[in-house]
Amino acid sequence: MAKSKPMSRFLGGASIEPRPVRGEMTAADLVDTAFMAYNGRRLREACRLFAEKMLAPDTVVGMSLTGALTPAGLGMSCLIPLIEHGFVDWIVSTGANLYHDTHFGLGLKMFQGSAEADDVALRKAGVVRIYDIFFDYHVLLSTDAFFRELARNEEFQQPMGTAEFHYRAGRYVAERERVLKLRGKSLLAAAHEYALPIYTSSPGDSSIGMNLALLEMEGYGLRLDPLTDVNETAAIVYSAKAHGMNSAVFILGGGSPKNFVLQTEPQIQEVMGVAEKGHDYFLQITDARPDTGGLSGATPAEAVSWGKIDPDKLPDSVVCYVDSTIALPLITAYAMARRKPRKPRRLYDQRARMLKELTDAYEKVRRKRARAKVS
Amino acid sequence: MAKSKPMSRFLGGASIEPRPVRGEMTAADLVDTAFMAYNGRRLREACRLFAEKMLAPDTVVGMSLTGALTPAGLGMSCLIPLIEHGFVDWIVSTGANLYHDTHFGLGLKMFQGSAEADDVALRKAGVVRIYDIFFDYHVLLSTDAFFRELARNEEFQQPMGTAEFHYRAGRYVAERERVLKLRGKSLLAAAHEYALPIYTSSPGDSSIGMNLALLEMEGYGLRLDPLTDVNETAAIVYSAKAHGMNSAVFILGGGSPKNFVLQTEPQIQEVMGVAEKGHDYFLQITDARPDTGGLSGATPAEAVSWGKIDPDKLPDSVVCYVDSTIALPLITAYAMARRKPRKPRRLYDQRARMLKELTDAYEKVRRKRARAKVS
Amino acid sequence: MAKSKPMSRFLGGASIEPRPVRGEMTAADLVDTAFMAYNGRRLREACRLFAEKMLAPDTVVGMSLTGALTPAGLGMSCLIPLIEHGFVDWIVSTGANLYHDTHFGLGLKMFQGSAEADDVALRKAGVVRIYDIFFDYHVLLSTDAFFRELARNEEFQQPMGTAEFHYRAGRYVAERERVLKLRGKSLLAAAHEYALPIYTSSPGDSSIGMNLALLEMEGYGLRLDPLTDVNETAAIVYSAKAHGMNSAVFILGGGSPKNFVLQTEPQIQEVMGVAEKGHDYFLQITDARPDTGGLSGATPAEAVSWGKIDPDKLPDSVVCYVDSTIALPLITAYAMARRKPRKPRRLYDQRARMLKELTDAYEKVRRKRARAKVS
Amino acid sequence: MAKSKPMSRFLGGASIEPRPVRGEMTAADLVDTAFMAYNGRRLREACRLFAEKMLAPDTVVGMSLTGALTPAGLGMSCLIPLIEHGFVDWIVSTGANLYHDTHFGLGLKMFQGSAEADDVALRKAGVVRIYDIFFDYHVLLSTDAFFRELARNEEFQQPMGTAEFHYRAGRYVAERERVLKLRGKSLLAAAHEYALPIYTSSPGDSSIGMNLALLEMEGYGLRLDPLTDVNETAAIVYSAKAHGMNSAVFILGGGSPKNFVLQTEPQIQEVMGVAEKGHDYFLQITDARPDTGGLSGATPAEAVSWGKIDPDKLPDSVVCYVDSTIALPLITAYAMARRKPRKPRRLYDQRARMLKELTDAYEKVRRKRARAKVS
Repeated sequence: MAKSKPMSRFLGGASIEPRPVRGEMTAADLVDTAFMAYNGRRLREACRLFAEKMLAPDTVVGMSLTGALTPAGLGMSCLIPLIEHGFVDWIVSTGANLYHDTHFGLGLKMFQGSAEADDVALRKAGVVRIYDIFFDYHVLLSTDAFFRELARNEEFQQPMGTAEFHYRAGRYVAERERVLKLRGKSLLAAAHEYALPIYTSSPGDSSIGMNLALLEMEGYGLRLDPLTDVNETAAIVYSAKAHGMNSAVFILGGGSPKNFVLQTEPQIQEVMGVAEKGHDYFLQITDARPDTGGLSGATPAEAVSWGKIDPDKLPDSVVCYVDSTIALPLITAYAMARRKPRKPRRLYDQRARMLKELTDAYEKVRRKRARAKVS
Repeated sequence: MAKSKPMSRFLGGASIEPRPVRGEMTAADLVDTAFMAYNGRRLREACRLFAEKMLAPDTVVGMSLTGALTPAGLGMSCLIPLIEHGFVDWIVSTGANLYHDTHFGLGLKMFQGSAEADDVALRKAGVVRIYDIFFDYHVLLSTDAFFRELARNEEFQQPMGTAEFHYRAGRYVAERERVLKLRGKSLLAAAHEYALPIYTSSPGDSSIGMNLALLEMEGYGLRLDPLTDVNETAAIVYSAKAHGMNSAVFILGGGSPKNFVLQTEPQIQEVMGVAEKGHDYFLQITDARPDTGGLSGATPAEAVSWGKIDPDKLPDSVVCYVDSTIALPLITAYAMARRKPRKPRRLYDQRARMLKELTDAYEKVRRKRARAKVS
Repeated sequence: MAKSKPMSRFLGGASIEPRPVRGEMTAADLVDTAFMAYNGRRLREACRLFAEKMLAPDTVVGMSLTGALTPAGLGMSCLIPLIEHGFVDWIVSTGANLYHDTHFGLGLKMFQGSAEADDVALRKAGVVRIYDIFFDYHVLLSTDAFFRELARNEEFQQPMGTAEFHYRAGRYVAERERVLKLRGKSLLAAAHEYALPIYTSSPGDSSIGMNLALLEMEGYGLRLDPLTDVNETAAIVYSAKAHGMNSAVFILGGGSPKNFVLQTEPQIQEVMGVAEKGHDYFLQITDARPDTGGLSGATPAEAVSWGKIDPDKLPDSVVCYVDSTIALPLITAYAMARRKPRKPRRLYDQRARMLKELTDAYEKVRRKRARAKVS
Repeated sequence: MAKSKPMSRFLGGASIEPRPVRGEMTAADLVDTAFMAYNGRRLREACRLFAEKMLAPDTVVGMSLTGALTPAGLGMSCLIPLIEHGFVDWIVSTGANLYHDTHFGLGLKMFQGSAEADDVALRKAGVVRIYDIFFDYHVLLSTDAFFRELARNEEFQQPMGTAEFHYRAGRYVAERERVLKLRGKSLLAAAHEYALPIYTSSPGDSSIGMNLALLEMEGYGLRLDPLTDVNETAAIVYSAKAHGMNSAVFILGGGSPKNFVLQTEPQIQEVMGVAEKGHDYFLQITDARPDTGGLSGATPAEAVSWGKIDPDKLPDSVVCYVDSTIALPLITAYAMARRKPRKPRRLYDQRARMLKELTDAYEKVRRKRARAKVS
């Protein structure tokens, strides 16, 4: 079997020769040892992209949250620790994740149930189901009342973007946590504490929006302004890039939050006409394949054709087809094993500055266009 | 092989004994003949649920649109014909479907391309890709300019819900269609003509929202109010049920538009405290399975535990796991083969009345609660 | 919006501008009209590849069957008509599809049931379930007895390949059909009549294999020889190509039958050392994505690197991600609408000739190698 | 928020309140801590079912292997260690997993490549691709030659089942490993050493079968007997149950190996008429959903209606929808952390005894039937 011919350039990758798995291995070592091919390898590459590149000091990390993450306990096991470690800088979430997160901050409980349960029986028993998670209907009613009560306060009687709404609401949740001697239970509370801005792309869609809509019907003055959110998120990305930093997106699931973190770049380039090249790092955990027509499954390569992703950075993109309920704990453990905490950026406090930078850049473009028209 | 014992009650379904498929069969006959089991059968049951029950005269049909439906040509092949036949009464769509729909109304073109294309080359050539669909970057810029131009008009300098925005914008698209001698190309234009309200659950998320955000930055007065949308959509469902009609939801894909059509019932029951039982018919076409944690995959059975679906109507629920690009043409052809057109309901024109009915019902609840507290 | 710059070469595909769907459309016209993008378009391309290229007179079509196709009625609605039209030339099937096919030929019945049924109750009631298909446990026992009885006959007391076993068994099923005045119910019977060879890649795996294993335990002489099948299927492909014809594979599902139809080419090239270039047309209907590690999801592009698919013919490959229960009726209707019947090839009768051609080709290689060693 | 009413019985599950994830956590602790819902929870339950119940001393564990497991390095990282720990007792594998396993035992290498590679270029460079794994075409030719050479030996000139073939072939691989000073690289070698029987359900399907088919064409005497395999595997399960032990199946993927491990019970009950109740534990890792029609996606509940699974043991069934490349390392690490090694059963050496037990049981049934007929 002597073979003297030179090995093909295609065979330059690491040889597949893992060590045996052992019971005492840390999660991070297991990923590095045994995740060699297919989605296992994609997950290892996701871990490495996150820990080695996205968590570099000069990279701003935006995260999008879809799927029932907080009901599954991933708020307190992963998302809050990631915030505390400075590993995420801004978030776009479904309202549902923030609404259910609030239960934990209010001392309300969710339980492991069964996906095979009889829903008619559950309905009769006043139990609500999210797949294999059960909780009392009372949990909904209490949380609804909590949001209505806080939003009747004077500070909410005005139009605002959703980051501001969540920040202000987060203070109430944090207070409740303090009273109940809880800590690290609520993402909203943690985001408030770390001045991390949380946006939602669909402000009316979720029980939070539903209760605020009722207040609107009752005549209260709160209005949520989704257009402000568009500009603020674009400003976060623009400011990072304008200051020589990189922009990374970490997408859990897909849906409109995925699009919302990605559309920041076309907002800058296509709509405003400000020169930019796209996000630098793209990491997505999803079950949606590209062929089925949803945005959730659209690839980073496709995003290049829209200017959402910098074409030169395409190699720094990973899509892993696996549940977030499996991937997020592994990625979190990996990042914590391999990276020291970063100083939290507290971007919420810098919204005005960032927005001004973007507005100034746009004004320059407008003036240039006006001059071009004149001459 | 003599068998005298009585047949089990489980064996009472239709026997599987289809006729041979022939080339001259209509699509509807093929579905009835050959779609016997698995997702084939689910699709046949979807066709029948839609044509036989959801399209009964006393049923109000809400539809949610996610995935790249209009870019795939399904606006002009299916959605507009469904509107013209009175087969859909209100819609919740992603902004992207409405934005790309507008291209066709403006006489701009999209082309069949290849999902395997080199996106860096496409980017250089100024070509944008949605999976296997290509179009000129200029199409984006032109459509952006169109939306900015119309939204600078006086009629838009105020806060409004998205149904109103889409209705008003639809008039401009319809005019452009007329000038260009096009017809039946744009869903927005058709919805305007038929006074069919179109909502979006994420008003800032899409190129429409992005351009409106730019106008906000420029100082214009348009604000989109997602909370109004919550109340209007709940009012559509409440009004139908209060007048003894049924409410049906037809969900293409999932995501926040799915939740938005479904949350109308918890808004009425849980948040407002008005007695109601849930939607009567539930039809979803999706690729998202229940086990993966997204709302897209949540089942109608689970929705029962939330009060979204009337538990007594659970048998009238169908979920079919197949691409909308395959299912929607088949369901459309089936409905047109089996059902006469219905008179369009023109719900957009009745928003005030429906909202008043819902507000009155809520006022009754409040007064009752106040009395209960006093006594 | 004047645009004078020349259109990109990327925008040369058909413009997306479908006609409205109507109720009287044939299935074939619906596919051509409305299936424009994503898996809808893949399915239209599958239809066209099959009807326009694979069914050309000079192309030999091998089909692999996995998934519960015959229980779903697709044997009598699609597969038998395809055989009768000369649209398929040889088949590799799971044993299960042939076993359940036999029920229909014996006059036994399967029924539409429910995938939500209580299986413990079904077990008690003697009802067996295949997803949403129900049948009496007696159907299994009767079909088991039928196979044991026929395989005790003298003609079966010898080793044979599975094509021979299925052909011989098919005669018994055909006779039973005649006695019961049934026609067109059983694939095994139809394949016997048309001398179409049916192989199985896993001869022990299925109730047919299980019953034959019992006969072996009882001391009977039938032995199934999977190695004969390997050579016979390679010979079918080799013979077609050696006579200037094309070889097409039509894969429903995946699994070992997929590999078995594809491995014919490596058998010729890699194992025998006979010069060949690979299959010419590749059509697969599956739900298995490439990233998950199964052969079912392996792409035609990957197959090129193995020599399974001729690299020059890669454009003539289509993979469509949709259930066979939806795709097969549509493809069948399309082919029948667009193609005249072909003369059946009766390949079963030509196994000896084809095997000799392959053996001769291998002998030439061996002699050449021997000469090379000597000199 | 006072709530005095008693909590519903549905809310008796563990409360969702995980600790924060930390970098130094072992994989097993991470699974126990953070895998709370959806497929994360299913994977935790899979780990526990395996470690706590299936690995009890009195349980015989059959494993089925599909998908590119050995090319992904999972043979040496997980499967061989599981065998060495006595955590698996018999195996049904695709031929492909055993063929590619052999490369490692022969000192041949596979490399991490890219799933996006140009396959036409790979073909030209003589590089073969399995998704994101690359290797030299020479690896195939060398392994082919190895199998042809060993199977020309006298000991192979007879009919045999596949366990015997793999056991005998395993000795050659083990010898080669010794010569090359390798250890723990090849599953075939390890199975030989531990007398663990490995079956394949599709003996002709894979490069092993292809090379043996060539020997048949050359006139050699080896015949593989799939019917023997049916009886031997049924005997393993029957013997375990007859001796008061439990039978567990651990299914990686699906396909014909899944059916082959499961059909042992219908073989005993339905075909032989011997009283038995079904497998006791069922653990499957797959991406195939039940609705798509393949056996891979068929649920343990459905298997109850066939007698494959003991209905009383249904709660001891877990299906987890995730790649084996992610699940297998986690389950392996978990089992090793939580369970001491078991004494290897060396079932290969006991085939004759087990087969006799099954034959005797069948003889009893036959005699009883004969008596019943007479009287």
